[in-house]
Amino acid sequence: MLNFKYKNPTKIIFGKDQISALQQEIPVEANILLLYGGGSIKKNGIYQQVKDALSQHHVEEFGGIPANPEYEVLMEALKLIKEKNINYLLAVGGGSVIDGTKYLAAAAKYNGDAWDILRNSIYTLEGEALPFSTVLTLPATGSEMNSGYVISRRATQEKLSAGGPGLFPQVSVLDPEVIRSIPKNQISNGIADAYTHVLEQYMTYPVGASLQDRFAESILQSLQEVAPKVMSEEFNYTAAADFMWCCTMALNGLIQKGVPTDWSVHAIGHELTAYYNIDHARTLAIIAPSHYRYNLKYKKEKLAQYGERVWGIECGTTEEKALLAIEKLETFFHSLGIKTKLSEYTEDYNGTAERVEKTFKDRNMLGIGERKQLSPSDARSIVEMSY
Amino acid sequence: MLNFKYKNPTKIIFGKDQISALQQEIPVEANILLLYGGGSIKKNGIYQQVKDALSQHHVEEFGGIPANPEYEVLMEALKLIKEKNINYLLAVGGGSVIDGTKYLAAAAKYNGDAWDILRNSIYTLEGEALPFSTVLTLPATGSEMNSGYVISRRATQEKLSAGGPGLFPQVSVLDPEVIRSIPKNQISNGIADAYTHVLEQYMTYPVGASLQDRFAESILQSLQEVAPKVMSEEFNYTAAADFMWCCTMALNGLIQKGVPTDWSVHAIGHELTAYYNIDHARTLAIIAPSHYRYNLKYKKEKLAQYGERVWGIECGTTEEKALLAIEKLETFFHSLGIKTKLSEYTEDYNGTAERVEKTFKDRNMLGIGERKQLSPSDARSIVEMSY
Repeated sequence: MLNFKYKNPTKIIFGKDQISALQQEIPVEANILLLYGGGSIKKNGIYQQVKDALSQHHVEEFGGIPANPEYEVLMEALKLIKEKNINYLLAVGGGSVIDGTKYLAAAAKYNGDAWDILRNSIYTLEGEALPFSTVLTLPATGSEMNSGYVISRRATQEKLSAGGPGLFPQVSVLDPEVIRSIPKNQISNGIADAYTHVLEQYMTYPVGASLQDRFAESILQSLQEVAPKVMSEEFNYTAAADFMWCCTMALNGLIQKGVPTDWSVHAIGHELTAYYNIDHARTLAIIAPSHYRYNLKYKKEKLAQYGERVWGIECGTTEEKALLAIEKLETFFHSLGIKTKLSEYTEDYNGTAERVEKTFKDRNMLGIGERKQLSPSDARSIVEMSY
Repeated sequence: MLNFKYKNPTKIIFGKDQISALQQEIPVEANILLLYGGGSIKKNGIYQQVKDALSQHHVEEFGGIPANPEYEVLMEALKLIKEKNINYLLAVGGGSVIDGTKYLAAAAKYNGDAWDILRNSIYTLEGEALPFSTVLTLPATGSEMNSGYVISRRATQEKLSAGGPGLFPQVSVLDPEVIRSIPKNQISNGIADAYTHVLEQYMTYPVGASLQDRFAESILQSLQEVAPKVMSEEFNYTAAADFMWCCTMALNGLIQKGVPTDWSVHAIGHELTAYYNIDHARTLAIIAPSHYRYNLKYKKEKLAQYGERVWGIECGTTEEKALLAIEKLETFFHSLGIKTKLSEYTEDYNGTAERVEKTFKDRNMLGIGERKQLSPSDARSIVEMSY
């Protein structure tokens, strides 16, 4: 096991009818900015539950944060934060709204051009951000219990990430009932996103961290078990709760402690979203299988273990089990209605591989992956295999 | 899944040569009391590492905290805390030293008779205790990452517990190297203790919390895998690290969230320690199998699941699998050199069952277990089955 430090101070309030707890959790003297996305929270009743909980608080609002939260939109919110002397943020939404809120929490206390934080990946320490809480409306990214975020800037086609220990939510309310009104394509995205988060922290070289491996496999197995239930038309609270907790545990920092992590699938996938606006989760499903095939010699032991323990593959050499496990992974994505080839999303895919290579070179991303040894030309090859 | 709240702010610093991190982690102006047990830390070098890390700090010392930390001894430490205006505690030891430190952290800020905290199970809120950190020298109890503690009072043969959100350690240093010098009987106790902690949170009625179940099974499987390696004469760092992290994860609150928990094995086991001074872990190994057999009709589904997933039992009815799983559990304890019958620890066991029944009645413990339905006379029957 590798040495590690772990601290996660976010308070999770999980379950039915828990949004009302915000009343006690947020200081009554806070000057709150409530942030949300496209307005679905006004249709499904969540907005009203939040407003009811905060009826004794002063609350300003900022809606319209888009998926892959946009720098330009967030700068409007930052202006409002400064004008209204906001000192507490409340994100009501999915990963995009929460990520945008984290960026705003950091930017509100940053002296200088807010884009610098992302351009230079500035680490936000405790006390260097506004306090904030979240009400999760779309399980997927784990942002409700971690301190990282990703922001897009359409004008420059950039998608960059930052974070730091000052950016853990104070409180996150997770009510599985919110899953009732989520469109199925967003649920399938959430499953694929959480599943790939686990893979990025697990499908690496073995270091004998048996508990972390088993925790990762536990999340993968539970997501597989829960997928058909949360994708079915009939709402199943037990499955919804399982799904929601799996997504949080997939990226709250726990399973990555003491083990190498990869994140190449995300690094490459982010480019596909930046170029073609493909949903984040779907870019991961496009890149992951090719990434594992391309890096088979480094990852075959863990791929075979995944095949054995998660998919019950019993026969074959390590390499055969590993290859079969990648097929199982693709089949799982397909079972969610998620396509795994870039050409199934855009006809305009020629040149993508070269463009990724050039972008990585320009950004000085010369070695990615768990051994920091995948070059921009390796990334090009992986994208080519994903066409 | 049941509704739950979860917050665990302890910072874990895990790995080789990490004790020196205390230098940065503890405020330099703190007036520290270093607490430890029988003095083994002076032989194995840990004491010197701590002193070196704190060479710029003011440190008083209090040694001699015994296993099953004694109220009378701790009251001596409390006197020292008050005399020396101590404002920060540092526990260097196993669960007993850490539990004792938690009690002192609460007692130092409590106005009134310190025993009241235990007699009345007073909940210690944030800010109601001295801040403290720990250096773990004996993996077992999970006390390094939770907010509960158990204190014994020999004069009255009581063993009582309390806790609260104000009693999470600020920082816990977990260096697997400490395992080199631990006697094997204490390692086997640690394995059995952590294993039973998991069972108390898992071997209940099913609520469809598939991730929590799998996390619990992950810890059990990892402990089983690691047991022969950490029990062998040759030190194995990888196995030691695995074992240490399993013990912490077994009782840091995570796996109990959203599921019913039992804790009858502990409630009854504590009495055996109070009466006969049997090691805590061994009392759990005495009581657990009888408890599961006695409550088979309530627990057979989960027992069978444990048999299937953890022990690979494939054939038989639910009840047959459940009974076989209990046998596997006993065999596992035996493999650690731990006996599972009370009569193997004391010849003087007659009347123990009646005494437990009377004690529970006197303490108004009229319904224990995950359904709060086990009466003092059920406890008597369980103890009788454990002779």
